[in-house]
Amino acid sequence: MPRLKMVVAYDGTDFFGFQRQPDRRTVQGVLEEAISRICGRPVRVVGAGRTDAGVHARGQVCHFDTSHPMPLDRWVPVLNRTLPRDVAVLSVEEVPAQFHARKDARWKIYRYAIDTRPVPDVFTRRFRLHFPFSLDVDAMSRAAAHLEGTHDFTSFSSARSPVENRVRTIHRCRVEREGPLVLVEVVGNGFLYNMVRIIAGTLLEVGRGKRRPEEMPGIIRARDRAAAGKTLPPEGLTMVEVGYVPWVEKEGDPASGRRCENACSS
Amino acid sequence: MPRLKMVVAYDGTDFFGFQRQPDRRTVQGVLEEAISRICGRPVRVVGAGRTDAGVHARGQVCHFDTSHPMPLDRWVPVLNRTLPRDVAVLSVEEVPAQFHARKDARWKIYRYAIDTRPVPDVFTRRFRLHFPFSLDVDAMSRAAAHLEGTHDFTSFSSARSPVENRVRTIHRCRVEREGPLVLVEVVGNGFLYNMVRIIAGTLLEVGRGKRRPEEMPGIIRARDRAAAGKTLPPEGLTMVEVGYVPWVEKEGDPASGRRCENACSS
Repeated sequence: MPRLKMVVAYDGTDFFGFQRQPDRRTVQGVLEEAISRICGRPVRVVGAGRTDAGVHARGQVCHFDTSHPMPLDRWVPVLNRTLPRDVAVLSVEEVPAQFHARKDARWKIYRYAIDTRPVPDVFTRRFRLHFPFSLDVDAMSRAAAHLEGTHDFTSFSSARSPVENRVRTIHRCRVEREGPLVLVEVVGNGFLYNMVRIIAGTLLEVGRGKRRPEEMPGIIRARDRAAAGKTLPPEGLTMVEVGYVPWVEKEGDPASGRRCENACSS
Repeated sequence: MPRLKMVVAYDGTDFFGFQRQPDRRTVQGVLEEAISRICGRPVRVVGAGRTDAGVHARGQVCHFDTSHPMPLDRWVPVLNRTLPRDVAVLSVEEVPAQFHARKDARWKIYRYAIDTRPVPDVFTRRFRLHFPFSLDVDAMSRAAAHLEGTHDFTSFSSARSPVENRVRTIHRCRVEREGPLVLVEVVGNGFLYNMVRIIAGTLLEVGRGKRRPEEMPGIIRARDRAAAGKTLPPEGLTMVEVGYVPWVEKEGDPASGRRCENACSS
């Protein structure tokens, strides 16, 4: 049965996260319902990452199997007519049967957006944290650089996380000002529960002068959730992109400079 | 009792319009509730225009009377902490007691936004009509020019409108492409019920080649709602600005070129 890969965007505000849950509105549930209705039989959807309740996506990647005879280029318009307005399918392509949206993901890009304007913007408020205070972006950038590399990120992981191996690689962590916004962008090979929101919360405290950039290595070494900053709320967080090496040549460099530069500029 | 003028922005999606209604969530109701809570007594709010259910505002203007001793510069932050997240007060200033938000309004700017991308954008979908078809913006612009001037706009008014005098002046009606968006901007001294949405709907039919720009004078002359195009849905419409002449010199030109140029670039 052919396997299809799709790129999905969603406004996470009105979802209880990506992962299917009984009696709750989830992105996976809504996607499975739409695809199953089109196919006339139950279809399971696998996503690259389980975003939390309230977290958004511009480039979540999913796969599903179907032998529906619809031409490939019809899937996007037909799915978008079937889906509710807070989810959109951006592309659909056929992939080899061994492709797996989660297991084959090599890097992910998340962005946390902080709006520092005095008055919140009603039109973008669902996708940004409103934090009307000045931030020292230079200090935040220096702190962010300490997170790059391969570390045990226990300090930046929810105490509720059941994962045993908390070693992850952050390929890039940058803080940039874009008008009234401060954007924290993190590229990594995988993320622990709440990891980006705790990173953004710790960098926010650096930006307010409550911590110094030089404290970051000690926070990482502590392997203690209490050593890092607060978990920021979900609305500011967006999963921007999921990266795969072309599956015909899986030995490729999973996060080569050029590839990642392209990805991040999207 | 001092009179305060405030500029208000709102995401109209979850409101039954501006005007207070019993047992329905309206912008006026939410504003009155917040201000009354701050003042500890019922306060009435008067708005410049009654936007419909689902219509947004970047620059609605309201006035209210209060003798609350709070310093003027505290009103914006205190109101925004009290208001729900889909309404924001952008500014508050004291005005002479004779200022009236509705009666003194000299022009209003409305903008209708049409997103022509094949796939709807989930992050802006609440504020745009998704219309994934190509539009002839040149033809729409030529049609729009015919609307400028003082006319009886009965053809562009909901048949439900109870108003007797349907003569209004459109100072400017422009259609512009901004990336994948087509924006219809109308500046006028006043608008009939559904007028901007019917104008945008008629121009959309011109953009699709179903009507010619030269038909516009005949549509106006018909004074018949059936002569014009369909009413577009509310989500694409935003009240951008309300213009006043400085009330110390009410003889000023209500819609001078420079004033309007400034206003429209906001």
